[in-house]
Amino acid sequence: MAAGTTLTRDELPVGRLEGFSDGVFAIAITLLVLELSVASDAEKHLLRSILHEWPQYLAYVTSFLTIGVVWLEHSSITSALRAADATMYRLNLLVLLLVSFLPFPTKLVAEFIGERDPEQVAVVFYGLVLVALDLALTMLWRYTVEHRRLVGDEADEERLDAGALKLGPSVAFYAGAIVAGYLLPTLGVALYLSIAIYLAVPASTIRRLIRRA
Amino acid sequence: MAAGTTLTRDELPVGRLEGFSDGVFAIAITLLVLELSVASDAEKHLLRSILHEWPQYLAYVTSFLTIGVVWLEHSSITSALRAADATMYRLNLLVLLLVSFLPFPTKLVAEFIGERDPEQVAVVFYGLVLVALDLALTMLWRYTVEHRRLVGDEADEERLDAGALKLGPSVAFYAGAIVAGYLLPTLGVALYLSIAIYLAVPASTIRRLIRRA
Amino acid sequence: MAAGTTLTRDELPVGRLEGFSDGVFAIAITLLVLELSVASDAEKHLLRSILHEWPQYLAYVTSFLTIGVVWLEHSSITSALRAADATMYRLNLLVLLLVSFLPFPTKLVAEFIGERDPEQVAVVFYGLVLVALDLALTMLWRYTVEHRRLVGDEADEERLDAGALKLGPSVAFYAGAIVAGYLLPTLGVALYLSIAIYLAVPASTIRRLIRRA
Amino acid sequence: MAAGTTLTRDELPVGRLEGFSDGVFAIAITLLVLELSVASDAEKHLLRSILHEWPQYLAYVTSFLTIGVVWLEHSSITSALRAADATMYRLNLLVLLLVSFLPFPTKLVAEFIGERDPEQVAVVFYGLVLVALDLALTMLWRYTVEHRRLVGDEADEERLDAGALKLGPSVAFYAGAIVAGYLLPTLGVALYLSIAIYLAVPASTIRRLIRRA
Repeated sequence: MAAGTTLTRDELPVGRLEGFSDGVFAIAITLLVLELSVASDAEKHLLRSILHEWPQYLAYVTSFLTIGVVWLEHSSITSALRAADATMYRLNLLVLLLVSFLPFPTKLVAEFIGERDPEQVAVVFYGLVLVALDLALTMLWRYTVEHRRLVGDEADEERLDAGALKLGPSVAFYAGAIVAGYLLPTLGVALYLSIAIYLAVPASTIRRLIRRA
Repeated sequence: MAAGTTLTRDELPVGRLEGFSDGVFAIAITLLVLELSVASDAEKHLLRSILHEWPQYLAYVTSFLTIGVVWLEHSSITSALRAADATMYRLNLLVLLLVSFLPFPTKLVAEFIGERDPEQVAVVFYGLVLVALDLALTMLWRYTVEHRRLVGDEADEERLDAGALKLGPSVAFYAGAIVAGYLLPTLGVALYLSIAIYLAVPASTIRRLIRRA
Repeated sequence: MAAGTTLTRDELPVGRLEGFSDGVFAIAITLLVLELSVASDAEKHLLRSILHEWPQYLAYVTSFLTIGVVWLEHSSITSALRAADATMYRLNLLVLLLVSFLPFPTKLVAEFIGERDPEQVAVVFYGLVLVALDLALTMLWRYTVEHRRLVGDEADEERLDAGALKLGPSVAFYAGAIVAGYLLPTLGVALYLSIAIYLAVPASTIRRLIRRA
Repeated sequence: MAAGTTLTRDELPVGRLEGFSDGVFAIAITLLVLELSVASDAEKHLLRSILHEWPQYLAYVTSFLTIGVVWLEHSSITSALRAADATMYRLNLLVLLLVSFLPFPTKLVAEFIGERDPEQVAVVFYGLVLVALDLALTMLWRYTVEHRRLVGDEADEERLDAGALKLGPSVAFYAGAIVAGYLLPTLGVALYLSIAIYLAVPASTIRRLIRRA
């Protein structure tokens, strides 16, 4: 029941959905560090060993930032909500399934970048999970937009529409990055990271840039 | 203290129970990914290695969805509450004990599916933990129903009753799935997954289907 | 600023302290499962291997229940608070340090029970961490009792006093259990578990038993 | 939406930022325990093995306390906020990136202290991450101070200014400790720990000490 708003029989509280989701986001984003390590013979040249593991850090930062921006989008969706419903709770579980799965392909990329054949597979697999996550988030966002009775007031509607600006084209970007990653794996990961950075730019900044152009 | 409602001497706040439970649910559901891995010689045929690990994904998705629906049921119980009490706090700890234990049998199933003798043991063990979790959740739900002074208003009571519709027969389903899993382990896990999907269907949808029939 | 109550310059919000603490409690209690495993040759007799690991389960349940009751006590302290202060935030960090350290001695007990010399060391070490945690919690509770301006109303004061009933003698119980554990390690762990169960009994039940006697 | 305050179009709720951050802080601080272990031949002299691992405990306590005080500073910033904005959400992600990265250099320090060459690298690397975290936190704090429209009332402003007293000189302390750690690695870690302890002292205590002097 939590705060303020009264819910109808088919509505569910937003607060609980936020609490559980924040937990999953926070854990997935923090678990990534567990995969970081140095070679077992690192003690001879620790500095070189640490630097040698750059694919790990690239994969780490990419996944951290991706989960980070998914959280940003997620919080801008839920902060616009007056109430949630049963479908939204389930769509949200799908988003969380993909968020919490991300450390697995991240680990594969970190391990196999630089090894000819497997790196191709790892980077494409990683990209497919990223695009699936992007699609699940878009579904959650679209569902909210199409069920305006769940949304608070006008300011909240505007905030929701702003998210669309960025999320819309992101699937196409990911598709391109996967193709690039098939041909040049390291470039693919760099593009995944770029998409995460692009998604991290506030919607208001993008709106301002468009208006100026 | 938290929000709004005043508590009598024997009552405890619901918010704290939700916060702690959300944490345990979120962590248990996210830890599952740590068990995913590929064979140490995966680099030769990474794609084949990834596909070869299907029992891992089956176990992963089954446990993810099971914890997900337990969370759905749990949140529909607590969102109907005006206050909790000492017994409910303890019953809740029992539910959380089983939720947080689930990654262990999940790991065994992921590892041993396909290996004749141990897979039988792993799948039955997994099923027993699932049925124990189902029973603990039913106890928590039943306790709430029988202590209506803890429940908010009429709309909340209806929401509680809805949960019964699905939870009631689920123990029987699990019993059947365990027997099936003893004979055909992989079928058993598929049935556990089916039960989780069945429990994920919103109560309102089931009510509508029953009315139509 | 969160909910309702206005804070003076030296007071800090309780909600944030609860949120962070719930996170640490939830993670520490769920991480315990990561240490559960079966021997590497378990596939030959998986059932026997699972049963053979009973010291793991004993340690698991003992630590789970201990963290669970510390959470119960902790939540009964914070739910009585109107506001926290800087000292309380720091005492709370000490409690959390010991809670999050607990998986380490738990792992040692799980591994070494049954091996003559090391089991003695592991069980005493485990007991010392448990008693330190018990003392830190007692300090937090005592600080609250002695700073009544932080406490809400009279009902909250009563709730606080109730906690004292159980926490008071628990340090002596732990001291006895450590001595027993030095002589008979497995008995020591069984006693640690018994103390956790004793602490899990609601204060109101103990009050009623005392009144009857 | 959440609690009380109405937000303008460019403002974001503080509650969600706190919930997610508390999750990351709680997980990072609790994951540290996973790196604690004893040598594989520990059973012969468990007590000696446990004591022999003192660099692990030193690194553990240092990182635990550092994350703890960053949480204290973070909570004193957010508790002064009426609303957050897009930039603050992103600065906060930077703080969390460094917090969740900390277990990696902690692991390196725990492993290599006592081994001549690598310990130097590990301690300096650890120090650089600590100083980066300190800078990110200072940026978050400074941004808040410079955007007073996000701050609640006068009492909140005073609370914010108090944080500055301690955070300001800390970067210089870290710089000194890194130099010391390059020359005498163990001393470096001891200094990192001292800085965390210094940051843990309540601002009001420091104010009082200054006034007295």
